[in-house]
Amino acid sequence: MNGYSYDKAMRRKNFNPTLYLVTDRRLAGNLSLTELVEKALAGGVTVVQLREKECPSREFYELAIKVKKIIPPEIPLIINDRMDIALAAQADGLHLGQTDLPVEIARKYLGSEAIIGLSVENKEQLLAALDLPVDYLAISPLFSTPTKTFTIPAWGLEGLAAARKLTNLPLVAIGGINESNAAEVIRAGADGIAVVSAICAASDPQEAARRLRFIIEEARR
Amino acid sequence: MNGYSYDKAMRRKNFNPTLYLVTDRRLAGNLSLTELVEKALAGGVTVVQLREKECPSREFYELAIKVKKIIPPEIPLIINDRMDIALAAQADGLHLGQTDLPVEIARKYLGSEAIIGLSVENKEQLLAALDLPVDYLAISPLFSTPTKTFTIPAWGLEGLAAARKLTNLPLVAIGGINESNAAEVIRAGADGIAVVSAICAASDPQEAARRLRFIIEEARR
Repeated sequence: MNGYSYDKAMRRKNFNPTLYLVTDRRLAGNLSLTELVEKALAGGVTVVQLREKECPSREFYELAIKVKKIIPPEIPLIINDRMDIALAAQADGLHLGQTDLPVEIARKYLGSEAIIGLSVENKEQLLAALDLPVDYLAISPLFSTPTKTFTIPAWGLEGLAAARKLTNLPLVAIGGINESNAAEVIRAGADGIAVVSAICAASDPQEAARRLRFIIEEARR
Repeated sequence: MNGYSYDKAMRRKNFNPTLYLVTDRRLAGNLSLTELVEKALAGGVTVVQLREKECPSREFYELAIKVKKIIPPEIPLIINDRMDIALAAQADGLHLGQTDLPVEIARKYLGSEAIIGLSVENKEQLLAALDLPVDYLAISPLFSTPTKTFTIPAWGLEGLAAARKLTNLPLVAIGGINESNAAEVIRAGADGIAVVSAICAASDPQEAARRLRFIIEEARR
């Protein structure tokens, strides 16, 4: 783990944000979600977040249980948005956006051991987040991306570097990151990169993850 | 309360299913959801269920908090589907459908005091529900209705009467119920009727609730 040092809380929580997979089943082609996750893990993904925005609750829950069974204990399973699914599936954590439940509420019900992350879309949200019981922040979107709507201005590398100066919390950059720009994202101050399509839509998700992981480790030297 | 006797658990839980409002903001016209609920309560609604299928979590939570503030303590606030919102807003209960979280999971996290209801769409589901920690069942859909998709066969009055013979759990009928058929629904064995459009889409929701409540009380004599 060249160049990255966990803080104590994160070591206890087993959170290594290096290569953070956010799932999107619709991009996975012929693979099932569990197959996709297995390949991504074999390639070196360090966190798995399940994001299912239009899925009945029961299906989301069953999916989380399935994925939990196939991922090793050192890899945290994070649920996007849905605290009920995180509780029901006894996931390791919850990722919240600005239109999701308040962080304090999630912390109250999930407990101090849960990994809780928050997406921040600008400097004001980042500064506000510093008073919240979060374990990491997602700098979102770092670049413009077709995965999310284009209504939110991107942080860009300069924005990320400025964010880095404001907090010691782990920062995960998300949005438009791929092999061509991952190294500069790490050098600009991200502790990890989160990707959706760079792995989920890759023809070989394992190889895509392996290459991204390699690029990150090289950039940390 | 002619004709309806609570069981002990329900008296403790303050659950009177007589006239059960399921909200749909999109039908409420010029009224805000809280205005709609206030009018429905003034007209005699005995339960309020918030159903928001396409609402960001934060907005659903804030809506639940708002509604909770305006409803009197003897009226339970039930959240549809989302256990996280029920927890976060400290609602009185949760209503689950067949594609929502399992009842046992909801009971585990919401506790024994919470009112947990389950929609059953056929006799098999009803019989399976008798082994679950539920407080009431929704017979759904009783009649065909434009609110839900038409893919599920309706119970009809005979189906409701047959369901009545299978359980002593409170039965709330939902789907296509209005002033013209509410009396026969009660006489067929429902402990209460649940309505969406009959109140939410009424030009005068208070008067619509008042009339439905009157019809139910008369039918119980």
